[in-house]
Amino acid sequence: MRIGIYGYGNLGKGVELAIRQNPDMELFGVFTRRDPATLKLATDGAKAYAAQDIEQYKDAIDVLIICGGSATDLPAMTPALAKHFNVIDSFDTHADIPKHFANVDAAAREGGKTAAISVGWDPGMFSLNRLYANCILPDGKDYTFWGKGVSQGHSDAIRRIEGVADARQYTCPVEAALEAVRTGTNPELTTREKHTRLCYVVAKEGADLARIEREIVTMPKYFADYDTTVHFISQEELDRDHKGIPHGGFVIRTGSTGRNGEHKHRIEYSLQLDSNPEFTSSVLVAYARAVYRLNRRGEIGCKTVFDIAPADLSAMSGEDMRAHLL
Amino acid sequence: MRIGIYGYGNLGKGVELAIRQNPDMELFGVFTRRDPATLKLATDGAKAYAAQDIEQYKDAIDVLIICGGSATDLPAMTPALAKHFNVIDSFDTHADIPKHFANVDAAAREGGKTAAISVGWDPGMFSLNRLYANCILPDGKDYTFWGKGVSQGHSDAIRRIEGVADARQYTCPVEAALEAVRTGTNPELTTREKHTRLCYVVAKEGADLARIEREIVTMPKYFADYDTTVHFISQEELDRDHKGIPHGGFVIRTGSTGRNGEHKHRIEYSLQLDSNPEFTSSVLVAYARAVYRLNRRGEIGCKTVFDIAPADLSAMSGEDMRAHLL
Repeated sequence: MRIGIYGYGNLGKGVELAIRQNPDMELFGVFTRRDPATLKLATDGAKAYAAQDIEQYKDAIDVLIICGGSATDLPAMTPALAKHFNVIDSFDTHADIPKHFANVDAAAREGGKTAAISVGWDPGMFSLNRLYANCILPDGKDYTFWGKGVSQGHSDAIRRIEGVADARQYTCPVEAALEAVRTGTNPELTTREKHTRLCYVVAKEGADLARIEREIVTMPKYFADYDTTVHFISQEELDRDHKGIPHGGFVIRTGSTGRNGEHKHRIEYSLQLDSNPEFTSSVLVAYARAVYRLNRRGEIGCKTVFDIAPADLSAMSGEDMRAHLL
Repeated sequence: MRIGIYGYGNLGKGVELAIRQNPDMELFGVFTRRDPATLKLATDGAKAYAAQDIEQYKDAIDVLIICGGSATDLPAMTPALAKHFNVIDSFDTHADIPKHFANVDAAAREGGKTAAISVGWDPGMFSLNRLYANCILPDGKDYTFWGKGVSQGHSDAIRRIEGVADARQYTCPVEAALEAVRTGTNPELTTREKHTRLCYVVAKEGADLARIEREIVTMPKYFADYDTTVHFISQEELDRDHKGIPHGGFVIRTGSTGRNGEHKHRIEYSLQLDSNPEFTSSVLVAYARAVYRLNRRGEIGCKTVFDIAPADLSAMSGEDMRAHLL
């Protein structure tokens, strides 16, 4: 299976490394909007190409993994590329998924291709676990908690404040809220009760720290609805202690069965990830295998993780899976 | 969707209650090897029938949920019934799954029917989580822990000892082993290090308690490889404190990604169940929906949870799923 990578940021680099862990795949090359000569790939024999030339390589690529941002890149890229390639992306703007799905589905059908969108961990593995748990326990309640992990969007929002040189924001689940959910009492939790926000900020010399802190904690949408803690640290400390991009979280459904709902059950799925982009990349690569197979079986159009049977993600035969994993 | 239940023990009764939680399903009736007149169903309008008459109701039942034991019932029942009905079972003898699969697959294909075997939580939801986690993190290690929960097989083994009137055995995961696994150090754990066994035993009057305890803790396969604790209690205490059938467990995969495996990740799935049979029943009913749909699409033969796309378990439309769960 020959994989193309479109975009070479953190996610694209993660995909390149994930391909190495899957012996049935090989990297054809990386497509970039930058000058291809400036890219240093980690894979022997793989080449960097100019994004604009990609249609020339239609027949050389089995699945193209599109590693762009959800805000502006993917809404345009994925439909455009789905006409010519089997594609997969990690589009994660939950509210816009129906529109993105429709656009990609139309394009893929036009080209006889197969696409999968919103593949990663949320949306992705968390969504899958919400679906399975809902089907098994119809009488119940879902909870999703994120963290402890770095939110790129919130870190960026802090960096835009005047006087801020650099920043890193962690979203943290509130342990007491997690415990309350686990008891099965189906608590109603406010935004503030579920997560806290922890900010490490490097201020520019002479900046007004009190004003920066006030601007952070009162920022609408991003911080105002949360208990937010701000720590001012040096650039050296930020680089030393907060360079990683960890993330994770919890999907919990509690529900009941029995004559009168007398039996309580809890289904819990959790992730703890040292590298958010590398884990997302690993999910993308597993689903690339499925996209390839679906297309070979003539199943064209846009799919999500809901539409893909788990066996299609695996390099194992059905016999081996049943003997060793069932 | 009209559901038939074949067998009316704990599992069959659980299926009957689970059908009530799914408005797109109705119970056609229960088939029993006992005298149908002796069964008291919980569902208005549903009837009990003699198991031997089942073929008369071929056209009245969309999916038959077979609620028998894995030791002797299911290996015969599921292939026999799969010739005439879409069927589903919870066959859980892991080592015999390949044979059972082959038998059921041949029968279902002969009859143009769809079957699903080994549906429940282990095999079932635990298997699914092992598969997904293996596909996402190829470089990693799997761990499954069970409990705290009642093992029917181990309780039965104790009850067969001379002088024992009644017994209840709990399998308990060792917290320290779980914590060691969660650190991502990929420990090699012995049977004894992973689980302990806790036994509540009601002795007959005048029985030799020391001998009973010795026979339990030294019993090969069942107890000899574990740290086993035996408590003698009265029948009243057993009935009062140990009547439930709770169970649960943990599926954990730790793995690494990155240039040199420098980023560690943990995927953890856990269940905590007040009623093992009712939860298994709830999984069976969700997969019954999928079996029905697969058959209507012409996908015949035997399936497992690996072969079934998650969307087929849900009564929601694709649009609703993508808008609300993705």
